[in-house]
Amino acid sequence: MAEEVSKAMLPYMALNFGNPGAIHQEGLKAKAAIEGARSLVAKTLGVRSEGVIFTGNGTEANNLVLIGLIKSLRRNEGIAYEDIEIVTTPLEHPSIKEALEQLKAVKVVVREVAVTAEGLVTPQALAAVLSPKTRLVTLAYVNSEIGVIQPLSKLVREVRKMERESQHKIYIHTDAAQAPLWLPCQLPALGVDVMSLDAGKCEGPKGVGMLVMHGAVPLLPLIYGGGQEGGLRPGTEAVSLVVGAAKALMLAQSKHKERAGRVAAIRDGFFKALEKTNLNLVINGPLGESRVANNINISLLGFDTEYAVVYLDKHDIAASTKSACAGAGGGESAVVRAISDDEARAKSTLRLTLGPKTTSQDLSKTLTVLERYQVLMKTLTK
Amino acid sequence: MAEEVSKAMLPYMALNFGNPGAIHQEGLKAKAAIEGARSLVAKTLGVRSEGVIFTGNGTEANNLVLIGLIKSLRRNEGIAYEDIEIVTTPLEHPSIKEALEQLKAVKVVVREVAVTAEGLVTPQALAAVLSPKTRLVTLAYVNSEIGVIQPLSKLVREVRKMERESQHKIYIHTDAAQAPLWLPCQLPALGVDVMSLDAGKCEGPKGVGMLVMHGAVPLLPLIYGGGQEGGLRPGTEAVSLVVGAAKALMLAQSKHKERAGRVAAIRDGFFKALEKTNLNLVINGPLGESRVANNINISLLGFDTEYAVVYLDKHDIAASTKSACAGAGGGESAVVRAISDDEARAKSTLRLTLGPKTTSQDLSKTLTVLERYQVLMKTLTK
Repeated sequence: MAEEVSKAMLPYMALNFGNPGAIHQEGLKAKAAIEGARSLVAKTLGVRSEGVIFTGNGTEANNLVLIGLIKSLRRNEGIAYEDIEIVTTPLEHPSIKEALEQLKAVKVVVREVAVTAEGLVTPQALAAVLSPKTRLVTLAYVNSEIGVIQPLSKLVREVRKMERESQHKIYIHTDAAQAPLWLPCQLPALGVDVMSLDAGKCEGPKGVGMLVMHGAVPLLPLIYGGGQEGGLRPGTEAVSLVVGAAKALMLAQSKHKERAGRVAAIRDGFFKALEKTNLNLVINGPLGESRVANNINISLLGFDTEYAVVYLDKHDIAASTKSACAGAGGGESAVVRAISDDEARAKSTLRLTLGPKTTSQDLSKTLTVLERYQVLMKTLTK
Repeated sequence: MAEEVSKAMLPYMALNFGNPGAIHQEGLKAKAAIEGARSLVAKTLGVRSEGVIFTGNGTEANNLVLIGLIKSLRRNEGIAYEDIEIVTTPLEHPSIKEALEQLKAVKVVVREVAVTAEGLVTPQALAAVLSPKTRLVTLAYVNSEIGVIQPLSKLVREVRKMERESQHKIYIHTDAAQAPLWLPCQLPALGVDVMSLDAGKCEGPKGVGMLVMHGAVPLLPLIYGGGQEGGLRPGTEAVSLVVGAAKALMLAQSKHKERAGRVAAIRDGFFKALEKTNLNLVINGPLGESRVANNINISLLGFDTEYAVVYLDKHDIAASTKSACAGAGGGESAVVRAISDDEARAKSTLRLTLGPKTTSQDLSKTLTVLERYQVLMKTLTK
């Protein structure tokens, strides 16, 4: 967590501990902190304060927009579930996939757009699955495993075309949890209607997410109780978390371009160095501008990458295979399987996530350890 | 927030920031912290670690048990919604009331037990609303507004009688958010099956709740995604919050008896002093053992208590009228209305919540300010 973020949070953990729902001084101070945080998020992302809902995490924000919107379309606009189509990609995070499974169970139609071998959604592919029944398009801005950045503005254009044809609103949602440190996230510029974020993914506290709307997005809550967060997320507001989330998001967005340029250069140096090794590997996801600055994902064919993670760990390098939310155990990466339809490749993924402070030296060391691991494995399996 | 709690949380906010779903050192450390916290909660409350689910707050825990259990009974045991009866009281928190409204909307039958003029549920009254169709009984251990402590053990006995008659399990849930600092909360001793808690209500961090089960309680999730918290609460675990929640709960329970005795004596001194004033008031809720140590709730008939709160606030006394979750605005207390059916009384409530450090001097000062306020109001309205 960024130091400035902890510093902003601490006063609301200890001294200012009021309930924002109360009308005494302590309550009003807490309320002011919440509303200050809300307006900071709004300003950072180019929306109005009313468009910012704080949730418990990114997963909850994703569930709230998917299930909450479809329930609202049915209950408040009388559209039958079977007449609602949602467009998504085969690369989405478990929180999107599983929420969509719930909607499928009540007969909502979910259509998957085809992706390229690098994981990109093209405007043509998107146009092919949009229909006059489409009410919602949901796709991640940046994929959490392979780092592919979707060309949102171009995709939005296709959706708006269909919107004119169908003469009803099509909501465009993007899960941008992986984006704030590296990419511009202002909703009006991206053209999306609603965005999910998670503070813990951009140097903020764990335990707080945000659902951010540009314009009206009709939602029904998933949890019921008091009127907090416009009735969409009841329960006493977690003041220090909300303050920390807003601060982290603002800091992330304020220097994202410079940060991304610097980190991408380090990352590309690693990719170049990989070429000179005799590691048998494939890079998962695109190279260049379509890849988020901090993501490295390779399949080390013939490697047991679960063991590789343990071996790297012994050398103080924290790596992973697939999404932590997809379970820490074995199995393949659903994302790499979806772009490659190659089981061996999907089972041998290794993901390295760079931080704003990762250096070229860190990555050279990582490469050396990987090569040593390869030699060791060859010796052991001889 | 208790100082020891912040101290326990800080390492997981800054240095140890791993994702508990990852298999590297940082991840394992985070995972160990989560599981350590889970086992501390389990030990504190007399249940097994598998019975502890961390949520985003008490409201979410209440929703998860009510909606999650009823959905599970229908989906996994094939019981139709119209064949399920839930017993509750008219005094419950908005998070219980609103979740029950959702269940009523799908034809689940919700029966309200009558309460005494002090807000107590008697075994006789409970027996009168239990039926062979009852599957769930939900009632707060301590009411958040009027402080009435329900005689859980006696009530549990009635439920178990009906359980033997109906030959199926009747789950007993208690919202114990207001209890840990003042009352024993071990589930086996209380006899309940499942308990909701909120760390922010017992000197822990805001933004984390707990659903605690003694024995198996079949639940379906409300939010979908990764497999965290047994699939019942997906999303990256909020390590520092979970650690803080467990610590706060343990500290609260470790000295509750001594704390309750001391604070109840101070509170009773205030009630005694009230008798000597010429304030026109009624005490809401019971006196003595059936009232939680830290609760004062009076109706000041003819007073505008919203203004009284503002006036007290100017003298550095934080008071409230009704539940903060019921909205900060005007209106009556639903709880006081339910016990009294008296609009004037329900509209003139004043609630003072004592902390472990509140002194007799604090309360004498409060009384002086209230008397001054009364004189002022009389002068103004002459």
